[in-house]
Amino acid sequence: MSIPDPTTAKTDFSHPSPDRIMQLGLGFMASKTLLSAAELGVFTKLAGHSMEGEALSRELGLHPRGARDFLDALVAMGLLQRNGQIYSNSPEADFFLDRAKPSYIGGLLEMCSARLYSIWGSLTEGLRTGKQQNEAKSGIGSPFAAIYANPDRLRGFLQAMTGLSMGPARAMAEEFPWQKYKTFADVGGAQGGVAVQIALRHPHLNGIVFDLPPVKPVCEEYVRSFGLGERLQFAAGDFFNDLLPKVDVVIMGHILHDWDLADKKRLIAKAYEAIPEGGAFLALDCVIDDERRKNATGLLMSLNMLLESPGGFDYCGCDCCDWMREAGFRETRVEHLVGPDSMVIGIK
Amino acid sequence: MSIPDPTTAKTDFSHPSPDRIMQLGLGFMASKTLLSAAELGVFTKLAGHSMEGEALSRELGLHPRGARDFLDALVAMGLLQRNGQIYSNSPEADFFLDRAKPSYIGGLLEMCSARLYSIWGSLTEGLRTGKQQNEAKSGIGSPFAAIYANPDRLRGFLQAMTGLSMGPARAMAEEFPWQKYKTFADVGGAQGGVAVQIALRHPHLNGIVFDLPPVKPVCEEYVRSFGLGERLQFAAGDFFNDLLPKVDVVIMGHILHDWDLADKKRLIAKAYEAIPEGGAFLALDCVIDDERRKNATGLLMSLNMLLESPGGFDYCGCDCCDWMREAGFRETRVEHLVGPDSMVIGIK
Repeated sequence: MSIPDPTTAKTDFSHPSPDRIMQLGLGFMASKTLLSAAELGVFTKLAGHSMEGEALSRELGLHPRGARDFLDALVAMGLLQRNGQIYSNSPEADFFLDRAKPSYIGGLLEMCSARLYSIWGSLTEGLRTGKQQNEAKSGIGSPFAAIYANPDRLRGFLQAMTGLSMGPARAMAEEFPWQKYKTFADVGGAQGGVAVQIALRHPHLNGIVFDLPPVKPVCEEYVRSFGLGERLQFAAGDFFNDLLPKVDVVIMGHILHDWDLADKKRLIAKAYEAIPEGGAFLALDCVIDDERRKNATGLLMSLNMLLESPGGFDYCGCDCCDWMREAGFRETRVEHLVGPDSMVIGIK
Repeated sequence: MSIPDPTTAKTDFSHPSPDRIMQLGLGFMASKTLLSAAELGVFTKLAGHSMEGEALSRELGLHPRGARDFLDALVAMGLLQRNGQIYSNSPEADFFLDRAKPSYIGGLLEMCSARLYSIWGSLTEGLRTGKQQNEAKSGIGSPFAAIYANPDRLRGFLQAMTGLSMGPARAMAEEFPWQKYKTFADVGGAQGGVAVQIALRHPHLNGIVFDLPPVKPVCEEYVRSFGLGERLQFAAGDFFNDLLPKVDVVIMGHILHDWDLADKKRLIAKAYEAIPEGGAFLALDCVIDDERRKNATGLLMSLNMLLESPGGFDYCGCDCCDWMREAGFRETRVEHLVGPDSMVIGIK
């Protein structure tokens, strides 16, 4: 502890408050409260009907000690509403956090509550060692092996990916000139979250969701629930070892960031191979701004890849454009979608 | 999965984006990034001089893989600045997050990184069982026993409390009519964070920091570093089992919320005993708004007490005023200090 200059100590009183730092530093509390609420199914329970606090707590299996603080914290965070002792969902929570609605994005939050939150507890170790901190901490095998080996975990992961992609998928459906194309494949398409949004918006398109064989039933159930079974097919394959489907547009959403540079380039080359002259490759990710100063979420996603994979990282738009041109794409551009997400577009 | 009405599915496109929910749900990533930065001493290393990124990473012991993303995420979060590859502290971080400055509040963040972040990983279990989830998960003994038993952990905890109280302590020094009083005691005063701010601002006051014996050296070092050894004394004692010092004003900062209702009332009665007619008792906490709708931080602090203590909880101003009147205080009021903190004032 240094001896402060008393003048400085006095002027401290007029200095800005430490509020912003404290709020950021303690932000994990609000975050984990939402994650636990998603895990406990609070918003699903309240979907469509309000409930008295004690009855709600009982049905959720909450001990009385913390229940009221928990529910009122969700009120203060704008996720629940309360009238007297009667709780209901905010419109936002009702739309996005009810498991029974197709607009559900809580799968990602459930996965964060079950896995990512605690994996991030080892961030300091990850930064010191450069090694992943998840189930595959031993470093053996694909980072996805642990997830794909367990059907429940796989379903949770696939739903999480749908949650992560819902916003950008809608923007991608709106903003890309789909009228020019007839077919697309979402490579590593998981449950089909992106493919469904595009197919819903553009009835002239036929699409393929390409992913590993265990994904098939989960994807087909999801696609059928939207009545899109005719226009969206599942194709089983490994995007490193199998040929990609021949289509007009190849999409990879939150795929490139999982892999190291050599694998990123392999995937870009495979996308190039799969499409015809004039076809397009859309790489959707939390693309980092070229100056690496603004997109905090993109940079945090890259740290997430440090913790989740042996070599993955998120990237700037300019880097991805370079890799695409190196692969032969004649035209590339970056388009912002929504929030932290952008797509890098390569035209062959 | 329910079958959605296709009309609804179409109107989904115009619905607000899930951005806010995602940002809140993934908020733990930004939060943990700041906590790890505090733990690693990033801002202390950069205090007063900028450094090239690679040299900085090397001195911090960071592996090259994640270092640049980590530092640039701190840039995007407004905590570092970068000019070319040269990093420096933002003014805010330099003032509040340099360990060598008396304005350091990072002790709390270091404690969060080392303890609270992972304890909050068990929030769901805490909500289901109503039981604390920290080192004293077994439920035996005081929640503070584990902290006070280890000198390093104790010092970290005491510094954390100084960080937590810095903002409200300054506001309390400004806003309370201290000219009416000559002496005060900060009961459970820890390192002396609150007492120092009040004594710096009001040279006519003499104060006592009252806390358990192991706190003495940590407090005295801190107080001396401000040149306040003459006016601030440490008095060792247990606030449940020993008499409190007789003074004009008794302060308890972030103390009442640690305990169950019976203990809260015992402490209020002891404060009443310690002061003369006309004396004041100031209870500083993240006082929850009476409607329990606004102060999210207060409600989250109460969940923190669920995880950290066998019976503690945060409270509304109206409840605390009731308890004070029950103890004999003739006048009570709540005054907002800064951010989520208020003080409840009782005049005897």
